[in-house]
Amino acid sequence: MKYELYFKDFLKAIEEKLEEALPPDSRYPSVIHEAMRYAVFPGGKRFRPVLALAACEAAGGNFEEALIPAAAVELIHCYSLVHDDLPALDNDEIRRQKPACHKRFGAAIAILAGDGLLSLAFQLLSRIQPAGKAVGILEELSTAAGTYGMIGGQVADLITKKEELNVPLVEFISIHKTGKLIKAGAVSGALAGGASKDALERVVKYGESVGLAFQFIDDLIDQDGSLQVIKAGEVRQKVRDLIAYGLRELRPLGSKTEKLNVIAGYLLKRLPRGNHVAVD
Amino acid sequence: MKYELYFKDFLKAIEEKLEEALPPDSRYPSVIHEAMRYAVFPGGKRFRPVLALAACEAAGGNFEEALIPAAAVELIHCYSLVHDDLPALDNDEIRRQKPACHKRFGAAIAILAGDGLLSLAFQLLSRIQPAGKAVGILEELSTAAGTYGMIGGQVADLITKKEELNVPLVEFISIHKTGKLIKAGAVSGALAGGASKDALERVVKYGESVGLAFQFIDDLIDQDGSLQVIKAGEVRQKVRDLIAYGLRELRPLGSKTEKLNVIAGYLLKRLPRGNHVAVD
Repeated sequence: MKYELYFKDFLKAIEEKLEEALPPDSRYPSVIHEAMRYAVFPGGKRFRPVLALAACEAAGGNFEEALIPAAAVELIHCYSLVHDDLPALDNDEIRRQKPACHKRFGAAIAILAGDGLLSLAFQLLSRIQPAGKAVGILEELSTAAGTYGMIGGQVADLITKKEELNVPLVEFISIHKTGKLIKAGAVSGALAGGASKDALERVVKYGESVGLAFQFIDDLIDQDGSLQVIKAGEVRQKVRDLIAYGLRELRPLGSKTEKLNVIAGYLLKRLPRGNHVAVD
Repeated sequence: MKYELYFKDFLKAIEEKLEEALPPDSRYPSVIHEAMRYAVFPGGKRFRPVLALAACEAAGGNFEEALIPAAAVELIHCYSLVHDDLPALDNDEIRRQKPACHKRFGAAIAILAGDGLLSLAFQLLSRIQPAGKAVGILEELSTAAGTYGMIGGQVADLITKKEELNVPLVEFISIHKTGKLIKAGAVSGALAGGASKDALERVVKYGESVGLAFQFIDDLIDQDGSLQVIKAGEVRQKVRDLIAYGLRELRPLGSKTEKLNVIAGYLLKRLPRGNHVAVD
């Protein structure tokens, strides 16, 4: 079954939550709210929020309990794309088949729109009840968004010259730039769902594995990143091992993890076949 | 007594908290942590965190209870300066008598250092106990930092052409760009100090008044902002009225508000005298 069909209910609920969370673009000064909405809609696969909702179910919760952290992790992801695309950083002009936020609104508004999305993500978390859950999720997401997480990975990527790249560095970059926020999405969902200590530890391991596998798959598709220092065949094997490890961790939690299992399956399907990979 | 002397204990505790909160600059990737520390140390007057600690005392708390929100509001302030100074925004090359963060580290690292400071501010809040206080302070600071607060003011300032400026617009900009975060500093401190509903409402009014007065005084010193549409004499009178109103609101809270009163007094002392003002 196609991803969009299998996760139809999740995706609908996520879009509604994001719609509700973002200020109306009629609100003065409207250009900033237009830019924030432009960065969020239409979205991509909404991978991180889908993961949050699935992890909530795996922890024994109802997915609706995790809609706030799901929206928050997506806002953090969207903000990071807006800032990444800026001329001072990657200088990417196209994002999700349309002009990047700074191409459409200018760099000044794009910087502030990213800032606005990040503050909004944390503002949303203040509405989670009870407060103890809100604080746990705040700690998880803010750490993943900061320099011990995503920003640390972006900076490492930025400062590492091609000739300096090696296996530990490429793993540091992949884990931090991409893995930490994906893991935090899963963990936030599990926390929202009232995960037991054991379930939480299992979701952490699953989230870390899937997060790193996600970046390796992107590298295989783009023929970049880890492929500069690791053979494609080995990267493919790492992806398979990571996903197998993540799935094994979930097994004791039983049938509630169905959607997390399915997500892992979709990731494996994105893995390019050997004969499509030029360098191997 | 000089500000630095009167608030010696507050300032020492704030510096220690900021020092503890910021990652060591030895931590990989070190350049981002160097840039974050460069943006925070040495500081200016630390007006917002001093206000937070004073408001905590006014609410009946011990100032040490408000050190986390105090550090957080200062990190948010510092991040906003780093992003404001960027070439795509104000393109300011000097900040606090040294090269702006982007002049020293480049625009890419400055953007990411600002992002890192913002995430770190919210991460700090997750350590406030009990969780109910953490969530209230999170709501206050994240709202003030977002597009209904500081960013809304920055954008309004950015998009308003000189010839479009009028009194309501200049008040919107002053309240949002500067006033909201100052007010949030005071309110966060009061929340940390366990303010009663009545005390909180009084601190809100004091914070709003002092926050707006702060911007008007800056305008009088810089001969800019509101002075483009309001006569200097009227702006001076507004400052006096705002501060008198703020002080009047505090009066029923008794002697615990001493430091908030003193802060208001220092603000009045910054007010340039009439004969120093060219346009009046």
